[in-house]
Amino acid sequence: MGAVTTADRAPKQDRSRATRLRLLEAAVSCLAEHGWAGSTVSVVAERAGVSRGAAQHHFPTREDLFTAAVEYVAEQRSTALRALPAQDRASVVAALVDLYTGPLFRAALHLWVAASNEPQLGSRVTELESRVGRETHRIAVELLDADESRPGVRETIQGLLDMARGLGLANLLTDDGARRERVVAQWTVLVEGALRSSPSAV
Amino acid sequence: MGAVTTADRAPKQDRSRATRLRLLEAAVSCLAEHGWAGSTVSVVAERAGVSRGAAQHHFPTREDLFTAAVEYVAEQRSTALRALPAQDRASVVAALVDLYTGPLFRAALHLWVAASNEPQLGSRVTELESRVGRETHRIAVELLDADESRPGVRETIQGLLDMARGLGLANLLTDDGARRERVVAQWTVLVEGALRSSPSAV
Repeated sequence: MGAVTTADRAPKQDRSRATRLRLLEAAVSCLAEHGWAGSTVSVVAERAGVSRGAAQHHFPTREDLFTAAVEYVAEQRSTALRALPAQDRASVVAALVDLYTGPLFRAALHLWVAASNEPQLGSRVTELESRVGRETHRIAVELLDADESRPGVRETIQGLLDMARGLGLANLLTDDGARRERVVAQWTVLVEGALRSSPSAV
Repeated sequence: MGAVTTADRAPKQDRSRATRLRLLEAAVSCLAEHGWAGSTVSVVAERAGVSRGAAQHHFPTREDLFTAAVEYVAEQRSTALRALPAQDRASVVAALVDLYTGPLFRAALHLWVAASNEPQLGSRVTELESRVGRETHRIAVELLDADESRPGVRETIQGLLDMARGLGLANLLTDDGARRERVVAQWTVLVEGALRSSPSAV
């Protein structure tokens, strides 16, 4: 009997896990497409083909669902970045900038902006963003093979990620790809210079 | 009688102009504090102490009011920037970054993000943002005394403004002032280097 129970439990856990993932992915697409005002647990449940009750079992509140969704996709993204093969700094800068031009950035931006006006969302999103931000910074330092003990290097990478975020914003309403490519090419040169030499020698 | 009519008309025009300005200023504060979802013509009219009818006389639609409001404050900001005394590049970079950390940026960000999901707002905000963006770029080139005929200079300044926008986003939920100051100091060094030399010499 024990064997049967274990065998039963495993597929049930798998199904529950699959449902959770479907909800998270539907939540990110929903947020990216419709913004916070158009994103509710019911809308996401329907999109994921899951009952509202099942959705609420996994995520009791709207805030739970959407912060978990943005965190889940951010983690996937970090994993993909860490798995990149060793490559030149220009490709790394391009990959970092790409983080901020897709649906995840759109979704995160909607959550971020909504959080600035909704206190119950504010503290959770602040905490989430700072965690994701630190992780992205850590990965950028690794991939760029940067020595943060040298003056100016840490701030160079922070500024690069701030620029990437600004480029993401510029891409929100129109396809800004051609301009972005030129800006990124030039700033790659500047960042490479800063990572090579001390700030005063740039 | 003619003299009386002219005398009557002038104060009336003044009053109408004053009402318009009150509405525009109330609209920007409203958008910054409550976001697009919480910003309607009625809310702004009440905040400005103006009747709803008078507000609709000036701005027939919600889109008219809020795009005009963001444009009005952007113009004020440009005028203030142009009036800055000649000063070192570090101060100019700091002034440019400051553009993206106040209530105007918050208001514009809300309008921008709302426009990404609302077609009737999208084309107007896209047009507005590109106009304001070109103007800000032009002022930055002037204040930084940059020679855009030299390779890489244009993209250096664009990237700087993208970074400023990204720093504004990072400041939305928490006071990011201390980190921002260090990033701006380092990126000022990089920008000064790029404006001095050709990109390949950096």
